[in-house]
Amino acid sequence: MPILEFLDYAGVAVFAATGALSASRKQLDIIGYLFLASATGIGGGTIRDLVLGVTPVFWVVNPNFIIVCAAVAIAVFLTSHLLESRYRLLVWLDAMGLSAYCVMGAAKGLAATGSPIVALVTGTLTATFGGVLRDLLAGEPSVLLRPEIYVSAALIGASAFVLASMLGLPLAVASALGVLTAFAVRGGALRYGWM
Amino acid sequence: MPILEFLDYAGVAVFAATGALSASRKQLDIIGYLFLASATGIGGGTIRDLVLGVTPVFWVVNPNFIIVCAAVAIAVFLTSHLLESRYRLLVWLDAMGLSAYCVMGAAKGLAATGSPIVALVTGTLTATFGGVLRDLLAGEPSVLLRPEIYVSAALIGASAFVLASMLGLPLAVASALGVLTAFAVRGGALRYGWM
Amino acid sequence: MPILEFLDYAGVAVFAATGALSASRKQLDIIGYLFLASATGIGGGTIRDLVLGVTPVFWVVNPNFIIVCAAVAIAVFLTSHLLESRYRLLVWLDAMGLSAYCVMGAAKGLAATGSPIVALVTGTLTATFGGVLRDLLAGEPSVLLRPEIYVSAALIGASAFVLASMLGLPLAVASALGVLTAFAVRGGALRYGWM
Repeated sequence: MPILEFLDYAGVAVFAATGALSASRKQLDIIGYLFLASATGIGGGTIRDLVLGVTPVFWVVNPNFIIVCAAVAIAVFLTSHLLESRYRLLVWLDAMGLSAYCVMGAAKGLAATGSPIVALVTGTLTATFGGVLRDLLAGEPSVLLRPEIYVSAALIGASAFVLASMLGLPLAVASALGVLTAFAVRGGALRYGWM
Repeated sequence: MPILEFLDYAGVAVFAATGALSASRKQLDIIGYLFLASATGIGGGTIRDLVLGVTPVFWVVNPNFIIVCAAVAIAVFLTSHLLESRYRLLVWLDAMGLSAYCVMGAAKGLAATGSPIVALVTGTLTATFGGVLRDLLAGEPSVLLRPEIYVSAALIGASAFVLASMLGLPLAVASALGVLTAFAVRGGALRYGWM
Repeated sequence: MPILEFLDYAGVAVFAATGALSASRKQLDIIGYLFLASATGIGGGTIRDLVLGVTPVFWVVNPNFIIVCAAVAIAVFLTSHLLESRYRLLVWLDAMGLSAYCVMGAAKGLAATGSPIVALVTGTLTATFGGVLRDLLAGEPSVLLRPEIYVSAALIGASAFVLASMLGLPLAVASALGVLTAFAVRGGALRYGWM
């Protein structure tokens, strides 16, 4: 599986898991899990494809992404009583999704337009929109308003990917660099309380 | 008028009415009625057309849908003081809109892609997005978070329609089956407090 | 610079400033300023382009709009401690953005479809969506729900532009008329407390 396709599945799966965990915290039923998992999992990529004019959007072209969201929602539904700290798991999975998706969004934006500025915006938007949508739908205060390094991590990860791509590094190397940079920044913020 | 076109007008009209009733509950002015009626009436179909890449969206192609929303908003504005229980009327109209739109969304998704999974998602999305948008804009707690059978009814109605279509039943029969199934489930939930 | 291009830049810049001022009121960091300024600045035009099927959307085609948002966000970030009344400035800038954007949205809708009704909707939607999005993301009560002439001003400005265009007045005259009408209505509401 090529690296970008892997990042797409990984981003969808972990964001879907955060949506399902949010449903769990709100004690919703299985349909609530499916709904929040799908909205969070595919929300960011959907808005990315829409603004780039890449339609039908990715999950209409390839419905496997829906199946991934549904499977993740059901798995979390069946096991969430086993989880000790759902919130802690949620934020770390969210960090992984953000790292995968800031690169994925930047790569699609760069491929579609050649503009590094558009790539930074689509990268940041793709990485953060799913989480913003999840918080809005679940009635939680948006992560945007908390004094945390969140959008910044997505922007920095997208910047690392775009810079590496402009310097001519291979796609796999640039992608890995972007993912690791974003995860280091977001993970550091979570672990050491950077703000 | 073909059945799908009828369902589209019916869905727009009753969702517009729920938006106008929401404006009434918030004691907004006539423009607030027009805005919430239009957003609720055409919101679900707009997101459906966008993700399927069917643009310009339906109400840009056929502005009659806007006229329907405006007429409904004005009618509700002029009569809402006569209504005994606006909330009760709102939820039953919403149930009718949800039933019409889960079939309409599934039919468009199935026609555009041939994928039953995409059809289930576009059906559920079309049926629920207008109401979610209405609640967000009106600052009400989203119906998603209430312990009610709501999204489920849309998903079950869309499933009935898709199943009937896959079995080769005529479009009108499959549509009627989907609408009635969704309405029975949502209506039962409202009437008997299923949850 | 042709009049419509000027209105587009003006609308983006002043809406971006309102987003940045909202970030300032919430005491966000610089990334919060960039995010809210961009979402508010380009939100309305993005939804307009999406529903009209004009994709990729305007800021993907011309990334200068992103640079404008970023420059405005940074300028507000560096100077916001100097501002005496951020809220007062915010609402007047918002009035200017609304006036520019109701004409811009109506002009694009009219050009794309020839339908005056679609033009009224895209004008009103373009002018109000950025502000609605800003309030949603910042967790503020939406301007839609306040007893103020806001959406009305956009609708009246768009109507003036569409009427003047239908009467055959030159684009520049029709645009100026629409902008001034919207600003007079919204400004009067702010200054004299019309409601």
